[in-house]
Amino acid sequence: MKPILKTGSNSFQLLAKDRETLARRGILRTAHGDIQTPFFMPVGTNGTVKTLSSEDLQEMHSPIVLSNTYHLFIRPGTAVIKKAGDLHSFMNWHKPILTDSGGYQVFSLAPLRKVTDEGVQFQSHFDGKTHFLTPEEVIAIEGILGSDIMMPLDECAPYPCEPEHAQEALERTTRWARRSKDFFLSKKIAKDRQLLFGIIQGSSFKELREQSAKAIVEIGFDGYAVGGVSVGEPVSLMFETLAWVEPLLPEAQPRYFMGIGYPDQMVRAVAAGMDMFDTVIPTRFGRNGSAFTNCGRLAMRNAEYIEDFHPLDEDCRCIVCQKYTRSYIRHLLNAGEILGLKLLAYHNVFFYIHLLERIRQAIEQGTFKQFHDNFLAHFKPNSEGAL
Amino acid sequence: MKPILKTGSNSFQLLAKDRETLARRGILRTAHGDIQTPFFMPVGTNGTVKTLSSEDLQEMHSPIVLSNTYHLFIRPGTAVIKKAGDLHSFMNWHKPILTDSGGYQVFSLAPLRKVTDEGVQFQSHFDGKTHFLTPEEVIAIEGILGSDIMMPLDECAPYPCEPEHAQEALERTTRWARRSKDFFLSKKIAKDRQLLFGIIQGSSFKELREQSAKAIVEIGFDGYAVGGVSVGEPVSLMFETLAWVEPLLPEAQPRYFMGIGYPDQMVRAVAAGMDMFDTVIPTRFGRNGSAFTNCGRLAMRNAEYIEDFHPLDEDCRCIVCQKYTRSYIRHLLNAGEILGLKLLAYHNVFFYIHLLERIRQAIEQGTFKQFHDNFLAHFKPNSEGAL
Repeated sequence: MKPILKTGSNSFQLLAKDRETLARRGILRTAHGDIQTPFFMPVGTNGTVKTLSSEDLQEMHSPIVLSNTYHLFIRPGTAVIKKAGDLHSFMNWHKPILTDSGGYQVFSLAPLRKVTDEGVQFQSHFDGKTHFLTPEEVIAIEGILGSDIMMPLDECAPYPCEPEHAQEALERTTRWARRSKDFFLSKKIAKDRQLLFGIIQGSSFKELREQSAKAIVEIGFDGYAVGGVSVGEPVSLMFETLAWVEPLLPEAQPRYFMGIGYPDQMVRAVAAGMDMFDTVIPTRFGRNGSAFTNCGRLAMRNAEYIEDFHPLDEDCRCIVCQKYTRSYIRHLLNAGEILGLKLLAYHNVFFYIHLLERIRQAIEQGTFKQFHDNFLAHFKPNSEGAL
Repeated sequence: MKPILKTGSNSFQLLAKDRETLARRGILRTAHGDIQTPFFMPVGTNGTVKTLSSEDLQEMHSPIVLSNTYHLFIRPGTAVIKKAGDLHSFMNWHKPILTDSGGYQVFSLAPLRKVTDEGVQFQSHFDGKTHFLTPEEVIAIEGILGSDIMMPLDECAPYPCEPEHAQEALERTTRWARRSKDFFLSKKIAKDRQLLFGIIQGSSFKELREQSAKAIVEIGFDGYAVGGVSVGEPVSLMFETLAWVEPLLPEAQPRYFMGIGYPDQMVRAVAAGMDMFDTVIPTRFGRNGSAFTNCGRLAMRNAEYIEDFHPLDEDCRCIVCQKYTRSYIRHLLNAGEILGLKLLAYHNVFFYIHLLERIRQAIEQGTFKQFHDNFLAHFKPNSEGAL
């Protein structure tokens, strides 16, 4: 058996635990600055959070941006970003960056793929070119990107799937996680305080989730991600899965609930002990004409907003809500103006970031349970149509 | 004959005249602030300069925004903007606004139209609804919009056209101009310092242009616009037309060369005595992937920029050129990201606004002729494809 290497960082500091829920309040220290936990990560798949500039993200105090190794590997390619310095320089974002490995994208986007223990062969969804990526290469790429928080290559089983398939995928994920960590340490990929997380798979099978969590925690990482969730399973099953895994996660490391979710789901996941979240929902829904508020979603193309001169959200302090009315934004959407999409994306991302800020304050003040109950009582998750 | 009413404003102050060219330096005083002339007006057809927010326009010191009566009348409709207060409130832009009358749009966009002396009947290009607008109604709408500089309804002859058609259009334009002014004054549409300009037509016929200029100047307006240019005629003919009209324009009013044009054309038009310019070129070309520099246009989608880590324009002080590289912008365009279009539009509009600022400085310093010659020597007007 290989020696269990420690990544050696002491990057996370737990500041407080809620008394009534599993909510936690902490600080995650990265090479590009400290992040207060729990926090939300706007998704910048192609090295840009859709419609927003890095100045916009600065202005709304985004603590971090998530980007995607698979997409950047395909376009513009690692060589371009290496010549730019790193991804921070390339996209002019000098706060922390987490890079997803691309495992999920290989399994969801690539038209042809072949998985072996060595790695994964796939065709680019962009130009059909065939690529082969190993766990080591993914870490090497993330090193070049200058990622503050690296995710290793994993195999994400679809939902639903047979337990045999889920087991195979989680065991390969575990072997790849070990290789990723070995490579991360032995090749001195990691610069000062670069972090590597482990990803827990196992689909919606309790035993497999527990097996995966134990194996990944045994290897030892700077943080732990619950992957393979929000892939089509019922929401109740997603939270059940979380409840199986959470007790097995060490208190001293941050926990990342991958690809989650609606605002109410984030509030619930914080109560279930999670610290980190990402989803394309605020930008994607913005581009679809939806605005998030504490009451749920508003479909801003609707005729009811034609002469509505209120801000998107009366309670919101973002610049869009300070400066523009629902009527104007509805007009922009109706006229097909890009600014309408941008203003909605801006507000929605601000709403998500600020929601996590409110959650942190509530935990600090010992009122998180009350905040949680109150938020869930008012927020209508799918008030106007499904995801 | 009707009495010739004076609009009575003394809104324009001529500060200096160039000794070597017809270039002028002045101040145009409006209800929403003074504008240093000559100046460029970013085009916000639908109440938004495409891809840019009013904060963006503030940040780049845009002195004014041009919007369009026809488009706003169609969408969202005058009633909505009236309830919002005015167009300034609706679009959150509190500096001056010039509103085009929509004459050009009725003649270029509306699928079916019928022009009589009373006004123009047309179908909306948006939903096919039939509308009828008179010169008086256009002024009334512009009053509701709270326009600082109103353009009256005119008839823009196509290019090429028969002299009979051109004469008919210019004479109708003159009659409409008089009715517009009568209505503007008699109905007390004008709030403090709202201005009304006259539009000179006459296609590319010297006698008709002179006839139109004399008739419009005789009516008397706060400024004079040369309309019906840049409608497909050769550039040399456009400047010839300008040379016919300019000597007939009073020195004491601002002159607006409508819908012009490329950067080199603006420099030439300033030398020919013009003060005001508008065109969709900087935003439209931005959305097409082009960046303006002192040397001409760069087609940013080209492969040559893949690893070019310079700013769009080394000489530019705009935030895009301070923060982002050609390589990154090329990547955004290649990946279909909206931010790429926005960054190019931002830079291009900044380039236009700043070019007029440089022109004003050169006039003040008595070096405009040198600036003019130098700019035209370096700027390649159609370096990479036609308009």
